[in-house]
Amino acid sequence: MSVVAINARNQFQGTIKEIILGPVVSEVDVETPFGIVTSVITTRSVKDLDLQVGTEVLALVKSTEVSIAKL
Amino acid sequence: MSVVAINARNQFQGTIKEIILGPVVSEVDVETPFGIVTSVITTRSVKDLDLQVGTEVLALVKSTEVSIAKL
Amino acid sequence: MSVVAINARNQFQGTIKEIILGPVVSEVDVETPFGIVTSVITTRSVKDLDLQVGTEVLALVKSTEVSIAKL
Amino acid sequence: MSVVAINARNQFQGTIKEIILGPVVSEVDVETPFGIVTSVITTRSVKDLDLQVGTEVLALVKSTEVSIAKL
Amino acid sequence: MSVVAINARNQFQGTIKEIILGPVVSEVDVETPFGIVTSVITTRSVKDLDLQVGTEVLALVKSTEVSIAKL
Amino acid sequence: MSVVAINARNQFQGTIKEIILGPVVSEVDVETPFGIVTSVITTRSVKDLDLQVGTEVLALVKSTEVSIAKL
Repeated sequence: MSVVAINARNQFQGTIKEIILGPVVSEVDVETPFGIVTSVITTRSVKDLDLQVGTEVLALVKSTEVSIAKL
Repeated sequence: MSVVAINARNQFQGTIKEIILGPVVSEVDVETPFGIVTSVITTRSVKDLDLQVGTEVLALVKSTEVSIAKL
Repeated sequence: MSVVAINARNQFQGTIKEIILGPVVSEVDVETPFGIVTSVITTRSVKDLDLQVGTEVLALVKSTEVSIAKL
Repeated sequence: MSVVAINARNQFQGTIKEIILGPVVSEVDVETPFGIVTSVITTRSVKDLDLQVGTEVLALVKSTEVSIAKL
Repeated sequence: MSVVAINARNQFQGTIKEIILGPVVSEVDVETPFGIVTSVITTRSVKDLDLQVGTEVLALVKSTEVSIAKL
Repeated sequence: MSVVAINARNQFQGTIKEIILGPVVSEVDVETPFGIVTSVITTRSVKDLDLQVGTEVLALVKSTEVSIAKL
């Protein structure tokens, strides 16, 4: 693991509610005060970061990855 | 514009608070219950969707684009 | 599901020809008049949107995700 | 430039119809049988690849970047 | 496979050290002189490009996908 | 800024060699042992993180964003 400083935008702090482990990638569902944020990361990362149900995490998104739709 | 049905995960509903227009891409800042969500989209999309400060929108993120960091 | 209006660029309308279901993500192959477009989405989305072979869908891509190569 | 072999999926062959040059990124609109495919790439790439209106190109998209919406 | 010319930035040349095959996506670990670069691509691509341990490849990244953190 | 722990894969440590500032996004070129890594981030992030020529940074890429091409 590396410890770094990142921009404070597009961060969703929460607690891991569920992990669906796959052979290559896993789904990590993060419960935030305002809803579930779903992430797909490598199963290798889940293990390297020792992510478990209940772990406090930040879900992070690059601004160029955010789309806008109109209601 | 096209009207479609999308998955309900990773949607951040809010109101546009600020738009920084560039010649090619623009920054659209959406005030949501999760905090400010910042999106970079084409200036063409800003015009096609007629986005303005105050417009109600959904900021959308694909699960494979969400990273996880540990606090 | 949410119903939203999106920008009309980078939309490929077609019919699902094949779905390869994985434990976490699935491959969805969309047959369009001009070729197959392949998408990898969460298996959760496949179920939430009730995607099946034969379902009419739009494959969508954000402009910032499109690369250009020269022939 | 590098010459490489890539997977044949999610390639949209066409001709550049318009380029909107920005200081950092540019919009490249490619006319393909699928319709217009819009790409945002660095202005540096536009110059390095010598892209111009009329240049034949491939627009490329990674499968994990393709979203699915229902009509 | 298609043979194309691409921008020379953000290319990491190396040899495949490990492939973890999944039903939909696979992890491809590329050993470069400066460290391992990890890629997740469709298992279909692994087969179409006939990727194996020892194959010489380029790992490629679009500039808009690169994040910056401060040490 | 937030200080977080992240997975150690796909990190390219280096020094900023050049910044091209745009009104919305900026190009940040990082000199690393792998060669120059080019990133496009919001100009807002450049300012929030106080990035300048000479600043030591990590360029980070999610594994799902890395493509593989054959030489």
